[in-house]
Amino acid sequence: MKKVGIIMGSDSDMPVVEAAIKSLESFGIESEVRIMSAHRTPACVADFAENAKARGFGVIIAAAGKAAHLAGVIAGHTTIPVIGIPIKSSTLDGLDALLATVQMPSGIPVATVAINGAENAAILAVQMLAIEDEALAEKLKEHRVKMAEAVMKKDAALNGGKN
Amino acid sequence: MKKVGIIMGSDSDMPVVEAAIKSLESFGIESEVRIMSAHRTPACVADFAENAKARGFGVIIAAAGKAAHLAGVIAGHTTIPVIGIPIKSSTLDGLDALLATVQMPSGIPVATVAINGAENAAILAVQMLAIEDEALAEKLKEHRVKMAEAVMKKDAALNGGKN
Amino acid sequence: MKKVGIIMGSDSDMPVVEAAIKSLESFGIESEVRIMSAHRTPACVADFAENAKARGFGVIIAAAGKAAHLAGVIAGHTTIPVIGIPIKSSTLDGLDALLATVQMPSGIPVATVAINGAENAAILAVQMLAIEDEALAEKLKEHRVKMAEAVMKKDAALNGGKN
Amino acid sequence: MKKVGIIMGSDSDMPVVEAAIKSLESFGIESEVRIMSAHRTPACVADFAENAKARGFGVIIAAAGKAAHLAGVIAGHTTIPVIGIPIKSSTLDGLDALLATVQMPSGIPVATVAINGAENAAILAVQMLAIEDEALAEKLKEHRVKMAEAVMKKDAALNGGKN
Amino acid sequence: MKKVGIIMGSDSDMPVVEAAIKSLESFGIESEVRIMSAHRTPACVADFAENAKARGFGVIIAAAGKAAHLAGVIAGHTTIPVIGIPIKSSTLDGLDALLATVQMPSGIPVATVAINGAENAAILAVQMLAIEDEALAEKLKEHRVKMAEAVMKKDAALNGGKN
Amino acid sequence: MKKVGIIMGSDSDMPVVEAAIKSLESFGIESEVRIMSAHRTPACVADFAENAKARGFGVIIAAAGKAAHLAGVIAGHTTIPVIGIPIKSSTLDGLDALLATVQMPSGIPVATVAINGAENAAILAVQMLAIEDEALAEKLKEHRVKMAEAVMKKDAALNGGKN
Amino acid sequence: MKKVGIIMGSDSDMPVVEAAIKSLESFGIESEVRIMSAHRTPACVADFAENAKARGFGVIIAAAGKAAHLAGVIAGHTTIPVIGIPIKSSTLDGLDALLATVQMPSGIPVATVAINGAENAAILAVQMLAIEDEALAEKLKEHRVKMAEAVMKKDAALNGGKN
Amino acid sequence: MKKVGIIMGSDSDMPVVEAAIKSLESFGIESEVRIMSAHRTPACVADFAENAKARGFGVIIAAAGKAAHLAGVIAGHTTIPVIGIPIKSSTLDGLDALLATVQMPSGIPVATVAINGAENAAILAVQMLAIEDEALAEKLKEHRVKMAEAVMKKDAALNGGKN
Repeated sequence: MKKVGIIMGSDSDMPVVEAAIKSLESFGIESEVRIMSAHRTPACVADFAENAKARGFGVIIAAAGKAAHLAGVIAGHTTIPVIGIPIKSSTLDGLDALLATVQMPSGIPVATVAINGAENAAILAVQMLAIEDEALAEKLKEHRVKMAEAVMKKDAALNGGKN
Repeated sequence: MKKVGIIMGSDSDMPVVEAAIKSLESFGIESEVRIMSAHRTPACVADFAENAKARGFGVIIAAAGKAAHLAGVIAGHTTIPVIGIPIKSSTLDGLDALLATVQMPSGIPVATVAINGAENAAILAVQMLAIEDEALAEKLKEHRVKMAEAVMKKDAALNGGKN
Repeated sequence: MKKVGIIMGSDSDMPVVEAAIKSLESFGIESEVRIMSAHRTPACVADFAENAKARGFGVIIAAAGKAAHLAGVIAGHTTIPVIGIPIKSSTLDGLDALLATVQMPSGIPVATVAINGAENAAILAVQMLAIEDEALAEKLKEHRVKMAEAVMKKDAALNGGKN
Repeated sequence: MKKVGIIMGSDSDMPVVEAAIKSLESFGIESEVRIMSAHRTPACVADFAENAKARGFGVIIAAAGKAAHLAGVIAGHTTIPVIGIPIKSSTLDGLDALLATVQMPSGIPVATVAINGAENAAILAVQMLAIEDEALAEKLKEHRVKMAEAVMKKDAALNGGKN
Repeated sequence: MKKVGIIMGSDSDMPVVEAAIKSLESFGIESEVRIMSAHRTPACVADFAENAKARGFGVIIAAAGKAAHLAGVIAGHTTIPVIGIPIKSSTLDGLDALLATVQMPSGIPVATVAINGAENAAILAVQMLAIEDEALAEKLKEHRVKMAEAVMKKDAALNGGKN
Repeated sequence: MKKVGIIMGSDSDMPVVEAAIKSLESFGIESEVRIMSAHRTPACVADFAENAKARGFGVIIAAAGKAAHLAGVIAGHTTIPVIGIPIKSSTLDGLDALLATVQMPSGIPVATVAINGAENAAILAVQMLAIEDEALAEKLKEHRVKMAEAVMKKDAALNGGKN
Repeated sequence: MKKVGIIMGSDSDMPVVEAAIKSLESFGIESEVRIMSAHRTPACVADFAENAKARGFGVIIAAAGKAAHLAGVIAGHTTIPVIGIPIKSSTLDGLDALLATVQMPSGIPVATVAINGAENAAILAVQMLAIEDEALAEKLKEHRVKMAEAVMKKDAALNGGKN
Repeated sequence: MKKVGIIMGSDSDMPVVEAAIKSLESFGIESEVRIMSAHRTPACVADFAENAKARGFGVIIAAAGKAAHLAGVIAGHTTIPVIGIPIKSSTLDGLDALLATVQMPSGIPVATVAINGAENAAILAVQMLAIEDEALAEKLKEHRVKMAEAVMKKDAALNGGKN
């Protein structure tokens, strides 16, 4: 199975990104977690992105805050799907990172998830890898069932089990 | 090859969505274009989404404006990847549709592209389908090369061919 | 008298929603409080909404944060009035939930109250039920009088009783 | 059956408000359409609101732009439900009117619909009146069916009738 | 000399409003501080505003949060100048109160100051009263000189007294 | 009677500012209309503001767009009241000018009116001048009555004269 | 004298960027105008930026819309100053481009000017080059004087020459 | 070498501005740090700006919050480059200061950095001074290399040294 690259622009993004790492693990997907900056180490980013497909990556997840260029820059250096996680930083509540991630020009998409939506970035990556992998697709369905059961259990508990 | 479903919430979204249809055609991807409303025909939406995988769809693209629930509702009824196109409508410049599409709760991602970013939705769908399809991946690279050449040609023209 | 359904998208919304539950109780309105997610348990939501009228509900209150689809999805499955409470979550201060709740397309309204405005959601529900219920209408007037008296009392206290 | 009051802050709001008038007519609901300003004719507004219930109104719809106080001011003078339509004016795309209408303090709700959402204001009023009126509730269901059929017809037309 | 009325929509606004009370005191202006709500006690507000001029008020300061209608409603009931202080509340950082206060329709102005700008509301009131009061105008100049000296003193301290 | 200064940052603001000039004329207030830029002719602005009181001005109205510093800069050079009109320019719908005008630091208020609210700036200036001028105060009341009559006339016309 | 590079992300930015080209010409500064995309031709961008200093460029101006990464990406590949012009595109009024340009992470600044502020980008570049060039500094002062005279001439014309 | 002026509107801005002071020190640039207010001590600001060039300043950095006029006012009194730092204050998350700093009218640019981006303001100033100073340019390159090494070290640490 293809691997997933998880790139964050700064180690300060780790508390958010951890949810993506754990989620991928729970689906048995191999990931490589990297700290690379679109502005401070642009050559590393370009190098990683250009070789990602050849190195066995199927999807890249990129997390960055403020003027979040990381996902877009990676997307400009590869044709495998890039998922962007806009990170909330100390001002503007993540709106800057959201717009800088999602408003990509024609031709170079970034699959953007919610601000700080690291878990969803992972699940979206799994969904992409599962398009041609029935076993993985099955795991996604099981995960969905578990989520539904968790909601229904809380609902039942709230009403003394009568719903 | 898996098909791509393109769902729009209203026929008024067609002028934007057309770019996605054409882009998929140019990559030789079969698509099914549908008008279904998360609020007016919710059963149709649920039915389409629940059967999409079995009917051979690999990805679903959903376009909607204002309180754009369509992509999220579809995502709640399937585990194949759902791409959301926020449509700019008569007020708020598409910000409402962007937030209503991208800010999904944990567990149910929507891969959101730019406001009115229909072409990018299509390319993102192709990228997903190309993860396990080398021929399609090759077409993406060619497309990328053509885009680059178009930019370089304009750049050269601007400078009398000397760049 | 008709009942009021109170649906929240997640049990984390309870601290906000409690004000609605208490307010309805104070007016002697029977309510049913449920946890149901538009995305994780869409079938439960559809089922609840479609049977609400027959089960004796007159109004449904729905509370959700982020890309708050819950109220709109419920409104798509019933013709009884649906009141939406946009919940403030960890980013964007509730603006995402407000827009995702209020900007509904033509034909399917959601009666939206303020961000985290749970008490007002309850009072609005009571106002709706009171249209044809004079005793309840009388209670609303008494409640209004009490609120006015509370303000006037504070005003008087501020000025040593001389206003 | 109870009547619906439709109040607009300025005659310039009429092009938007007309959709509400027509929609109420189509449901056979009697309405009274008034131009009254929360700031220029506050006594008229207070007088209308205070006597609305006694004069047979079940619901009041109020439309205003900019610092849209009209719906809130009316709500402060009556306990029947007040529906607010935020009107888009020449700046800020209606965001000012939306916030000024929806962000009401505890105790005095305004049931807010989308910016320029006049048709939905009317349908919401009908839903409120239909809580205790089965014939009207039936009309709402028929209206919902017609909307669904219109969407399905467009969907079918798009696909040569094969959906 | 004319008095200044200071009206707040809720006693929870007092921590902000206090700066206005103290500032007026420091200029020797008599004020009357009141708690009155545009929605909960609208008759009190109308009564106060309509009689303010006759009771010797030259200016009214009104402070309110969220859908801040208070200043605008007062302005609709008097022709003396009304100064609005938008109060920051638990969501949207005061933007709702700012827009609901400042975006008044033609004919009924509210002199709006910064979010939570209570001190400036007081100074603006003093400036208005000083138009025809040379002694008060002189106090404003002295206050301005003191402010300048305070800044210059801090500047000098920063640089060891050498600026 | 004191005069009113009307300063605009650019002659392109004239179409908006004209409403203020006309409104002051209708109240018989003498005004002086000037084009001065806080950034291009700062010395002119400082000079005008510093001498305004001595030259018989009671109030200054300042109109500017984008990073609208004009009103604030004038306010820093005088202690007579300064009214700011935020001008809508080609981007951001006047939000930039509104925030740059209203969010003044403690000590130096600007009485801000709505975006492009030139007529209200004039009326606010008249209200300030009328604090100690009963004849002018009377004119304001007459103007208010005329506005009310205009609204009531439109209301009556709408309903065939029966309101 | 050092040259100025003017890079735009797309030829559609030319109508805005032209003002920068003309302004630099008027100061006698040599410029090189290029079309290069951070996403479509990233290698060209990196190559240009990395060699800019050696090729005699003193400043680079970069113009881009939407998720405007161009200025930031260039800044990551050079240590000469980079000026960013956020371009207004079809949605969000340039706010996306402004935030994506200005909110750069620590270490890699972009000197951001107003949305569509091409002329100011050029003048800022001239100011930078003039730090060590007295002749150019003199031209800037003359330009400033001319701007002031233009404003004063309009002011005088407005008042029949009497100011 | 030319000096850098660092002006802050209030001593409360010092915790943010300190990063700029330290950064300039680390590059061996002489700076003068001043507290001056565009509104409280406008004459000091004008005086400083007008004499800055003659006193040996090459660049001025100005930091201010809310309606942040400081950088723009300074820019109106000098032709040396002015860098603006928008300061986040108690409301609106710095958006007001950003817009009031960056949206300057044609002719008078302010080189705006990120909200609270004091370190970047310093680095931008160094970049400007380094245009004609090879030794300083070399220091910038070394600084850039150190930043890259810090990122790469963290990246290596994360992966047990294997990247």
